[in-house]
Amino acid sequence: MCGIVGVSDGDSTQVYAGLYALQHRGQDSAGILSYNGNFHLKKNKGHVWESFTKDSLKELSGRKSIGQVRYPTIGTDFERDAQPFFIESPEKMGIVHNGNLANYSELRKEYTLSSWCDVEVLLHMLSKHLKITKDPFISVEETMKEANGAYSALTLLKDGSMIVFRDPNALRPLVHGEGMYASESIALDIIGKKLEGDIKGGECVLINDNHVERKQLIKEQPRYCMFEFVYFSRPDSVLQGKSIYEVRLELGKELAKKFDKTADVVIPVPDTSRAAAFGFSIESGIPYREGIIKNRYVGRTFIMPDQSTRENAVKFKLNTIKSEINGKRVVLVDDSVVRGTTCKNLVNLIRNAGAKEVHFAISCPPIRWPCFYGIDMTQKSELFAANVKDAEKTLAEKIGADSVIYQSIDGLKNAIGLKTLCTACLNGDYPTDVSTLLARQGNGKRPYEGE
Amino acid sequence: MCGIVGVSDGDSTQVYAGLYALQHRGQDSAGILSYNGNFHLKKNKGHVWESFTKDSLKELSGRKSIGQVRYPTIGTDFERDAQPFFIESPEKMGIVHNGNLANYSELRKEYTLSSWCDVEVLLHMLSKHLKITKDPFISVEETMKEANGAYSALTLLKDGSMIVFRDPNALRPLVHGEGMYASESIALDIIGKKLEGDIKGGECVLINDNHVERKQLIKEQPRYCMFEFVYFSRPDSVLQGKSIYEVRLELGKELAKKFDKTADVVIPVPDTSRAAAFGFSIESGIPYREGIIKNRYVGRTFIMPDQSTRENAVKFKLNTIKSEINGKRVVLVDDSVVRGTTCKNLVNLIRNAGAKEVHFAISCPPIRWPCFYGIDMTQKSELFAANVKDAEKTLAEKIGADSVIYQSIDGLKNAIGLKTLCTACLNGDYPTDVSTLLARQGNGKRPYEGE
Amino acid sequence: MCGIVGVSDGDSTQVYAGLYALQHRGQDSAGILSYNGNFHLKKNKGHVWESFTKDSLKELSGRKSIGQVRYPTIGTDFERDAQPFFIESPEKMGIVHNGNLANYSELRKEYTLSSWCDVEVLLHMLSKHLKITKDPFISVEETMKEANGAYSALTLLKDGSMIVFRDPNALRPLVHGEGMYASESIALDIIGKKLEGDIKGGECVLINDNHVERKQLIKEQPRYCMFEFVYFSRPDSVLQGKSIYEVRLELGKELAKKFDKTADVVIPVPDTSRAAAFGFSIESGIPYREGIIKNRYVGRTFIMPDQSTRENAVKFKLNTIKSEINGKRVVLVDDSVVRGTTCKNLVNLIRNAGAKEVHFAISCPPIRWPCFYGIDMTQKSELFAANVKDAEKTLAEKIGADSVIYQSIDGLKNAIGLKTLCTACLNGDYPTDVSTLLARQGNGKRPYEGE
Amino acid sequence: MCGIVGVSDGDSTQVYAGLYALQHRGQDSAGILSYNGNFHLKKNKGHVWESFTKDSLKELSGRKSIGQVRYPTIGTDFERDAQPFFIESPEKMGIVHNGNLANYSELRKEYTLSSWCDVEVLLHMLSKHLKITKDPFISVEETMKEANGAYSALTLLKDGSMIVFRDPNALRPLVHGEGMYASESIALDIIGKKLEGDIKGGECVLINDNHVERKQLIKEQPRYCMFEFVYFSRPDSVLQGKSIYEVRLELGKELAKKFDKTADVVIPVPDTSRAAAFGFSIESGIPYREGIIKNRYVGRTFIMPDQSTRENAVKFKLNTIKSEINGKRVVLVDDSVVRGTTCKNLVNLIRNAGAKEVHFAISCPPIRWPCFYGIDMTQKSELFAANVKDAEKTLAEKIGADSVIYQSIDGLKNAIGLKTLCTACLNGDYPTDVSTLLARQGNGKRPYEGE
Repeated sequence: MCGIVGVSDGDSTQVYAGLYALQHRGQDSAGILSYNGNFHLKKNKGHVWESFTKDSLKELSGRKSIGQVRYPTIGTDFERDAQPFFIESPEKMGIVHNGNLANYSELRKEYTLSSWCDVEVLLHMLSKHLKITKDPFISVEETMKEANGAYSALTLLKDGSMIVFRDPNALRPLVHGEGMYASESIALDIIGKKLEGDIKGGECVLINDNHVERKQLIKEQPRYCMFEFVYFSRPDSVLQGKSIYEVRLELGKELAKKFDKTADVVIPVPDTSRAAAFGFSIESGIPYREGIIKNRYVGRTFIMPDQSTRENAVKFKLNTIKSEINGKRVVLVDDSVVRGTTCKNLVNLIRNAGAKEVHFAISCPPIRWPCFYGIDMTQKSELFAANVKDAEKTLAEKIGADSVIYQSIDGLKNAIGLKTLCTACLNGDYPTDVSTLLARQGNGKRPYEGE
Repeated sequence: MCGIVGVSDGDSTQVYAGLYALQHRGQDSAGILSYNGNFHLKKNKGHVWESFTKDSLKELSGRKSIGQVRYPTIGTDFERDAQPFFIESPEKMGIVHNGNLANYSELRKEYTLSSWCDVEVLLHMLSKHLKITKDPFISVEETMKEANGAYSALTLLKDGSMIVFRDPNALRPLVHGEGMYASESIALDIIGKKLEGDIKGGECVLINDNHVERKQLIKEQPRYCMFEFVYFSRPDSVLQGKSIYEVRLELGKELAKKFDKTADVVIPVPDTSRAAAFGFSIESGIPYREGIIKNRYVGRTFIMPDQSTRENAVKFKLNTIKSEINGKRVVLVDDSVVRGTTCKNLVNLIRNAGAKEVHFAISCPPIRWPCFYGIDMTQKSELFAANVKDAEKTLAEKIGADSVIYQSIDGLKNAIGLKTLCTACLNGDYPTDVSTLLARQGNGKRPYEGE
Repeated sequence: MCGIVGVSDGDSTQVYAGLYALQHRGQDSAGILSYNGNFHLKKNKGHVWESFTKDSLKELSGRKSIGQVRYPTIGTDFERDAQPFFIESPEKMGIVHNGNLANYSELRKEYTLSSWCDVEVLLHMLSKHLKITKDPFISVEETMKEANGAYSALTLLKDGSMIVFRDPNALRPLVHGEGMYASESIALDIIGKKLEGDIKGGECVLINDNHVERKQLIKEQPRYCMFEFVYFSRPDSVLQGKSIYEVRLELGKELAKKFDKTADVVIPVPDTSRAAAFGFSIESGIPYREGIIKNRYVGRTFIMPDQSTRENAVKFKLNTIKSEINGKRVVLVDDSVVRGTTCKNLVNLIRNAGAKEVHFAISCPPIRWPCFYGIDMTQKSELFAANVKDAEKTLAEKIGADSVIYQSIDGLKNAIGLKTLCTACLNGDYPTDVSTLLARQGNGKRPYEGE
Repeated sequence: MCGIVGVSDGDSTQVYAGLYALQHRGQDSAGILSYNGNFHLKKNKGHVWESFTKDSLKELSGRKSIGQVRYPTIGTDFERDAQPFFIESPEKMGIVHNGNLANYSELRKEYTLSSWCDVEVLLHMLSKHLKITKDPFISVEETMKEANGAYSALTLLKDGSMIVFRDPNALRPLVHGEGMYASESIALDIIGKKLEGDIKGGECVLINDNHVERKQLIKEQPRYCMFEFVYFSRPDSVLQGKSIYEVRLELGKELAKKFDKTADVVIPVPDTSRAAAFGFSIESGIPYREGIIKNRYVGRTFIMPDQSTRENAVKFKLNTIKSEINGKRVVLVDDSVVRGTTCKNLVNLIRNAGAKEVHFAISCPPIRWPCFYGIDMTQKSELFAANVKDAEKTLAEKIGADSVIYQSIDGLKNAIGLKTLCTACLNGDYPTDVSTLLARQGNGKRPYEGE
């Protein structure tokens, strides 16, 4: 879960704007590397607006820039592990990526490294192959052969050329248009660039000053991450030609087909579940109401009052509109349940506002397997549905709901409308060999912890 | 436009939490005054979370506290004019208020003042009367006689007693419950206190350690500000017994009754117009869609890219979902139009997403008169509708919409369901004498500017 | 203990520079008020360089400015009590001063005040008299009659005229030259202005755009504070025509005349005692050496290591040169002893470096009476010499010195070369009536504490 | 010019205190690496007190720590190049050093590096040898053979053992005592540790939990940097058994022997030249006076007033005591002249205070050759004395002094009392092969610039 942006003929403020649009993909660090003959690098802990000043953007001069916002799945030192990564020797070169290398543990033994960010390995691999082959395409192809996992990457080389590539399974998104390359199309929207399409899995683009060359290096079946559609991408994004908002309306409709009870009102958990809840209402005919209001300042550092009220922390984030809930049978729609720790508070919130019944509907199927491709759910032991037999029944009991319904895998596929999805976290069907990582499960530790 | 919170038996973190809930009412400064035998005061420029630290909240000790968040209508020096105001002599005493004194210019000549915040005058008036009468109720009554305008106020006296009072016309809101007094009920919700009702216009409450005394000092017809219902209060608030969300659904329904065309989709301007747009959809039968997505990080200091893209600043705030708009006849619902400067960008945004027609529907009637009671529209020359004959037609031309519909005053009253509203800004029917201020209109200056 | 600077025809950066030169006189807050038709005010906690930015100095535009650095003797809220003070009504007007009003407690009852800084009273007094008399000179004269104590003050009036005045006893310094008025001549040196002389006690200067008028309003015997010469002013200052450095050399010589023992080396406590120690060496013939080195970064916020070393805190400030001390009989020269709490550490420092004998010589006579004129020694109970019979013998025992010698009052007068000094803190001869304040002594509280 | 501190059995606050004592050796960055089973690293731009908080020192837990303050001679990105350097693989390991590698340009081609700090090369070299040999002593010996130049280094290995070593010529200082290793003895003084001696050139110490092993790896003639004695070290330091203060008194005496004129007063340039000036006074019999006062707040960020006064910038740093200078023949003593750019201001300062004659005496001989061992004078073209025939005469003309006298090399050696000094910058006698670097002189670029 990260966001990347690059421009092959634009200034760093365009990358900055794109990162701002992708801020929901990572909030722990932000960084930009630009090239104007020399390289200029700025990266910092925190949000995009905390990481750059007017002056620092001016210093990031040049017509080529790459940037990243990070949500770490490996590495917990935000400063040490912030992207872009850059080396001064043997040849200056920098990189950003979105994804996760499944064979990171094996790879890092081969290099002299100063961080726990997997892109540093990717950078050293590319540097090694470039030193030998002097050919960017061959170097990327060799790197793709060694790297197992998800990676959408942007690279700036010593001579100012940019390389763009995406892992053979196209696990993480990477769109492009008018010289911009980004994780989601909204990064293009924000500066008025037109979406032209997606970089394909196993594809590599090399951009020099006046030349764009695009090659299919490796050909495998695409396996687009279904979680981007269900939860992670913004609703106004278009990925692989699909409108995320439309997909979510459809997810709600598919979910409603499974609902066999009656109710008075459908209420979304804001902001992410609004489309799914509305789709549910359309399909079921149960009226839609915004019964929960999210405090618009959520996310700011806030000092919590004393312990007695700390339990009510959810109130600092969400408040109910009692007139829409009191005395009613409520269908509460949420997008996904990973650990199952927060839904109990949501159900309580609705009950405290006077609901007669609460039915909890989830637009994503049960998550039963760990993800090693960049979504922060790497431990089977932490996944609620991985450890129970009847997920709907058990969850209903756990969170005090009158009933729970999960999306089906078929419903999910229908709603997205793409056949080649990665559903590894739902059914264990991994597109790459992750047997070593799976073997480590059960010790309660995260895959790369304490190495 | 400000928010106030006080607790008569709670700690300052409760006031802090309440101010956080009221943050939308004022973001320029925040302050709290507490009493534990001694007085403790903290106030700062900026948001609630920028103005207090864990340590500063600890220093605000005691069981009585009053606080305020400010959006200034007079006075532009945020630090000098931040509330609470406090005097050290002749007797220590502090105050916060929400509202605006219409006769501020006359009153300030009589006192030695160090700011341009009208609450300083209110404080000096009260102090003067208390020095003479030694009686809080009589002092507040005398103050009410001298002060013309809107004021919901909370005061802490030397002996730790708290005074709460609201102007005779009850222009600005003031609710209470379980020892908390606040501008909106959501300040009570956030710490789990139960709403008990509203302080009446002309009423005064005196709270000592073990005694609450409530007196009706002056009796006039209430004139509740209609703008609180239409736009200013949060949808999950309940004022004068009315759910703001329900009122806004009704506003949408009333508005739809005036719509005599056909369309394919109703789209709200997020976040404030969602309820009205949904009400419009219910009444009209035109499908509702969330065609505009608001960047969830709007409000953070952001460095804008170079000039060419500066015109597109709206894109940093709002993005469209093209699939919901392209090729469609759109009804775009907004809550109100004051200056008419931003709606053109909204219409453009929808047109650029491919809309075939754009109809702009406004859930508030045309604003034709200045407000002197605390809403930041004090200059007739700045009000779009004050200066045109046919507001709907003229606005449609100005913003490039296919049509514009405004709410009617009757529709507004029906939707709110209260008969005694202040509609001065709509029809010039002012509840207090503002002839002096009206006489100054036309010079292009704001009422108190340059004195 | 404060510093003030004003310019009657120069920009605010000159006042800023002057305040930087006077930084040793007060480090708790700094502020400047300028006038360019309108008034501009900036004041902040902390040092001069922390209180202003390039931008804030630009905003302080105009050709007249007054500024202050503050070391508070009354009032402990640095922000609330920071100077300059300014009122908006009945007429805009601002002030800074250096000194202390001995009858502050009485005066503050008569005014409505928001701080505990005595200059606020001075400002209200002046404002009151100006409102009545409309004449600056008469207003200052009336103010001088009411105010008891020390005050060197600079004022800016509504029409941009500047008033400069000094209390009738001339207790605190106030020099001038080429349109600058300042506490010490070094404020003039730093911007290359030539010292022209001192403002006299009871004198008032009124400066309009093209006119300087100077009047002797009240005539009393001057009583210059001896502590300015002994300790407080910088050695490169010239006050009342005397070079502070020369005075301190003479203080050392006078002190040496009282020394009846033999020793191997004279060592100053840096930085303030260097001149006195060198004078001692000249007179006594005992070689001078810099045996103590002061860390040049003293004064920066520093995190102290754990408790075991916390006792050795003096080592973070001072270190010895063992080669100059080991095996020697040392005369250690310090400028003054007020509470007697730190000299034990100094003697220990010298002993630990291997000294055979330590003789502690103090260039100021014993301080036995509280000061109510602006030096932070207001409590008799806190003054070491006020509470013992034989100060030299008792101090030697307390601090573990082989002997102690204090300056005599005659030696002090000879060294300074001025007959009309305030020596109230040495012999209780107060130039103004302080009987009320003296009567309060003994309760252990500072004069204005807890009112 | 850097400072290093390490403790083999103490907490990180001791290293912090030591770095504070060594702050004069480098103010651009500060960092500490500690080991408590895991490694903890903090480094930042700026002073010691800006780089650490109470919390960050707590996080630097463990009984072994190494730290550094940096004044860069290579590398201008303070954050990227700040020490300590640390690698995560193939084995965790960290380092600090003081010095400069003369063959850095050659060495960096062999490693994959992310900075322009020469200690990164040292770290990679050690890591490489450790991987092969597994023996710390052999690894250091191999590193010493490859590295040409000055380096006093402290290293922490994966198992928590500490390695201390100094280059064979002992160019940069490295003292020790009671388990602390530091650039100067004052780092020991500040926490009360006793100085035990110096680490020898070519020596290596390996400290494990309960074992200290010390080996002479390479034996060469020591060549202690003379500049440490003349200028760089603090006067209260003891290096190679010599008191710096005593050395400087002697330097002044030696210098006075060359002075063949008469004068009225000897005045030091504060603070560094006080001892030399006093020695000059003792030897010559000319009275010593502190005629220049240094502003005690020099070094704080300060906004300079407008251009007219910018020329007088020296006044913000230094002010004169006119009574000691006016009408007199002055000997002004300074410690060294490198570029010759500031002495003209000093002479002017004295002249403007009314001096009849100004003789400029310099306690260091003329600097004619670049230093490649860590003193920031790497370019022959920048050295005043390198480019003139008669340095004394030419300098006198340039700065407007009546005469100039430089120390002789013999005088320098007599004063220091050590025979084996590095005087390369005085006479070109370099202890290591620097022919490549000398060959690059003349292009006007610094040695490693723009590579």
